[in-house]
Amino acid sequence: MNGTKIKLIGELPKLNNPIFIEGLPGVGNVGRIAVGYLLEELKAKKFAELISSHFMPFVLIHQSSAVHVLKNEFYYWKSKDQKQRDIVFLIGDSQSVDTTGHYEIVETILDFLEKLGVKDIITTAGLSVQTKEKKDRLIGAVSSPDVIKKYEKIGIDFDTGSKVGTIIGASGLLLGLGRYRDMNGLCLLGETSGMPEIPDPKTAEIILKVLVKILNVKIDMSELQVKIKEMEKFMSKIQKVQSKALSQMLAEEMGKGTGDKEDLKYIG
Amino acid sequence: MNGTKIKLIGELPKLNNPIFIEGLPGVGNVGRIAVGYLLEELKAKKFAELISSHFMPFVLIHQSSAVHVLKNEFYYWKSKDQKQRDIVFLIGDSQSVDTTGHYEIVETILDFLEKLGVKDIITTAGLSVQTKEKKDRLIGAVSSPDVIKKYEKIGIDFDTGSKVGTIIGASGLLLGLGRYRDMNGLCLLGETSGMPEIPDPKTAEIILKVLVKILNVKIDMSELQVKIKEMEKFMSKIQKVQSKALSQMLAEEMGKGTGDKEDLKYIG
Amino acid sequence: MNGTKIKLIGELPKLNNPIFIEGLPGVGNVGRIAVGYLLEELKAKKFAELISSHFMPFVLIHQSSAVHVLKNEFYYWKSKDQKQRDIVFLIGDSQSVDTTGHYEIVETILDFLEKLGVKDIITTAGLSVQTKEKKDRLIGAVSSPDVIKKYEKIGIDFDTGSKVGTIIGASGLLLGLGRYRDMNGLCLLGETSGMPEIPDPKTAEIILKVLVKILNVKIDMSELQVKIKEMEKFMSKIQKVQSKALSQMLAEEMGKGTGDKEDLKYIG
Amino acid sequence: MNGTKIKLIGELPKLNNPIFIEGLPGVGNVGRIAVGYLLEELKAKKFAELISSHFMPFVLIHQSSAVHVLKNEFYYWKSKDQKQRDIVFLIGDSQSVDTTGHYEIVETILDFLEKLGVKDIITTAGLSVQTKEKKDRLIGAVSSPDVIKKYEKIGIDFDTGSKVGTIIGASGLLLGLGRYRDMNGLCLLGETSGMPEIPDPKTAEIILKVLVKILNVKIDMSELQVKIKEMEKFMSKIQKVQSKALSQMLAEEMGKGTGDKEDLKYIG
Repeated sequence: MNGTKIKLIGELPKLNNPIFIEGLPGVGNVGRIAVGYLLEELKAKKFAELISSHFMPFVLIHQSSAVHVLKNEFYYWKSKDQKQRDIVFLIGDSQSVDTTGHYEIVETILDFLEKLGVKDIITTAGLSVQTKEKKDRLIGAVSSPDVIKKYEKIGIDFDTGSKVGTIIGASGLLLGLGRYRDMNGLCLLGETSGMPEIPDPKTAEIILKVLVKILNVKIDMSELQVKIKEMEKFMSKIQKVQSKALSQMLAEEMGKGTGDKEDLKYIG
Repeated sequence: MNGTKIKLIGELPKLNNPIFIEGLPGVGNVGRIAVGYLLEELKAKKFAELISSHFMPFVLIHQSSAVHVLKNEFYYWKSKDQKQRDIVFLIGDSQSVDTTGHYEIVETILDFLEKLGVKDIITTAGLSVQTKEKKDRLIGAVSSPDVIKKYEKIGIDFDTGSKVGTIIGASGLLLGLGRYRDMNGLCLLGETSGMPEIPDPKTAEIILKVLVKILNVKIDMSELQVKIKEMEKFMSKIQKVQSKALSQMLAEEMGKGTGDKEDLKYIG
Repeated sequence: MNGTKIKLIGELPKLNNPIFIEGLPGVGNVGRIAVGYLLEELKAKKFAELISSHFMPFVLIHQSSAVHVLKNEFYYWKSKDQKQRDIVFLIGDSQSVDTTGHYEIVETILDFLEKLGVKDIITTAGLSVQTKEKKDRLIGAVSSPDVIKKYEKIGIDFDTGSKVGTIIGASGLLLGLGRYRDMNGLCLLGETSGMPEIPDPKTAEIILKVLVKILNVKIDMSELQVKIKEMEKFMSKIQKVQSKALSQMLAEEMGKGTGDKEDLKYIG
Repeated sequence: MNGTKIKLIGELPKLNNPIFIEGLPGVGNVGRIAVGYLLEELKAKKFAELISSHFMPFVLIHQSSAVHVLKNEFYYWKSKDQKQRDIVFLIGDSQSVDTTGHYEIVETILDFLEKLGVKDIITTAGLSVQTKEKKDRLIGAVSSPDVIKKYEKIGIDFDTGSKVGTIIGASGLLLGLGRYRDMNGLCLLGETSGMPEIPDPKTAEIILKVLVKILNVKIDMSELQVKIKEMEKFMSKIQKVQSKALSQMLAEEMGKGTGDKEDLKYIG
């Protein structure tokens, strides 16, 4: 494989006008945590995996000694009543490590979403800021101005243009490239004051509450803190090995010795 | 999408032997400003957008909270009388961020220009110099020596070879690769003494005046200073977020902490 | 060739449910040494070469003045009795020098292994550690938990998850991507306390002994030390020229002078 | 164009078992100078150009103000009598700027050579060494040991393996990849003690004399020193602008200011 592929697990699910929710890793991992908790609570079902040569070339080893390549995962959930909609979720270990890969991965996702009949997209992202003023509301960006009306009553701050200049990676490109396919996109930006790579559970909770409101679902929030701890551990493990792997590979590519890296424990 | 695509807005316009004018971002953004003002004054009509995986993987957020991916835009203008020609314009947010992407994007543009019946190409570029001696004339480069005759009376300095060695990016490649398609190319090089990334409105004005002369059109120059200010702001915003995005992505790729970047405000 | 190709030498061998053993270069070159010695002792037959644009763009010059491009080599061995299995070996000069190349090369290998009827994969790797506690056993990782049963009696430590986080390159990806093809994978990780690029013959011997046990073959170990010396010399030569080539190419790409590299002897 | 293309000028020439001589830029540009002079003296005819997205994305401006993209050029020469052979020459401005591009370009060349009926390849390269001992002979590398016999009487030192480890770029890959097409390859390595990027006319002359002997042609050597000066100037101009372009592009990619590069004169 040179490129990006989606591997179906069983049949393609038949969904009724589903809404798509993205929660890939990013600043503070706020989307990853919120969407991960939501799909677990809803008992959403995994139905596809996305793998890409634009992810790092290594496998992660689980506690069971089994390995898996870095991947993104698709889940679906069927609505229980008329006030809800079918949902497609996307979470994952990683985003593209090179710039061109982002486009390829996002277009592969959008092709797949078209097959599933998706017309509405919600992405999530962390917004790194110096000081936090607005703790309880999210900033929103949209694929086109008329999408704002749809979500106006949710309590999202749509005065985005003056505050934020850009959204990097899948959260932004899903909206920007989805527009060419007439998909309505909303990006939920949660402010986080910490370091970009440190998970921010508080902001994740704010995103989660807004998602629950938009989707009109009920979930048990009581295990959120426990689950956040677990997910933090997993994501920080991935980030740690990714950092190590990157620095090892860079060192190897530079043809340098590794005298200063003796304390690293790695495999190749 | 892996690669470069042109998305038509409506039908492909039927043009009569059109001339092509390129004004993508570059040194001093002189071409971007001149061509941007010209097409606005002529009320040229947008008919296509070019997107590419060789642009940075982020979206820009407008004042309206709507986003768009980095793109290049095609406009056309129909001649009003016999002394004028139909025109195709190209402006945009960005050029390729990697070296191989330049070739792909330029070949995609040339394929499209062939469909539109373009035989004549004019590109614009800034030439960074230490001191400015010739303020009122442009330096010209051509796709082949016989093109010089066509533009001799315009007041372009064609003693280029002794002064300049190379033209980087789309402005150069459109000429060099267009030659293999028997397209006649002219590059207008405006001297600019400032920093490459700081817009140079004075040189933009010189380019604009020469374009008006070549195209035999009349435009109102009175709003040039106002429009230049606006365009400067927009381009500098793009460049700022592009710089931030690049340094963030580099930092992430290196697996470094971000202790020294705390004052940046970014999203991912 | 842009990409990765496997060149057959003669016919594709007809093998009966063969097991695949990988020994590409990596930390301490432990797999390269163990598998290289094993296939020489078994007099396995070379039947294919893999070349890739993701290897370094140079040729190696042999003592005979003949050259070859960097390559990976496939060997096969036919079982002598009912207790043994047919074997496919892979050794080589190099792994991918860029991150995306690893995926392409591993998928090309897996396509080829499918054609050969391979269902079982064993990869080998060195695990760089500070101090060595367990000298006589290997750490194992598997493509899925049920593979552990197969190899439980061999004396492999399957408590991997708590010790190791990741396996970089072909040794890991062959398992992780092979899983999507229902291939059963085992990675043998030998602890090595030295520098990653210095061959570790002691760990190679441990891997070799476990491979002999799994494959149920008998080989003469008496020449191991001699052969290890030879292989070390060859691999260190490759690594030395690769380092030189890399630093030369980096210097050229940076447009730097080479005043500090005068003592290097190179060709271009 | 994304990739590498050969553009024919007129018809494909019909040649009788031609021998191929490569002289692309490299260490000391010794091959470029020798082969360039030889084809000029023989009045060989240009019949094709190779362009590639793996060359730098800029055009060179000639004294005439006309531009051309970086390219490689094919020339042919028809034998005058029975003792000579038809010849195909390759010279050029550049080699690939990235590692994977070398493979793509060399395979494109080999595909083209197969069409022309080429079975014998001679490449040229400079070998950077500390001190010069053998001034009048060249070191040779071959695609396979039996090629040595062919050229034994020419006065080439085939004790290469002990002196040289690797040949980087097209000079090496043409031999190494040509071997898979049953092409007989010889690389002539001229020792040069200077900086890799400074042309070495003395070594170029040694290579030229050996080529003349192999090809059994007679040329006027009296203008060699004059021509070498011209070629040096042209190649050094290309290298200078390439260095500038590279450092400019790197600076832009890093999002840095250019305060320390004010003395550069460039265009974009």
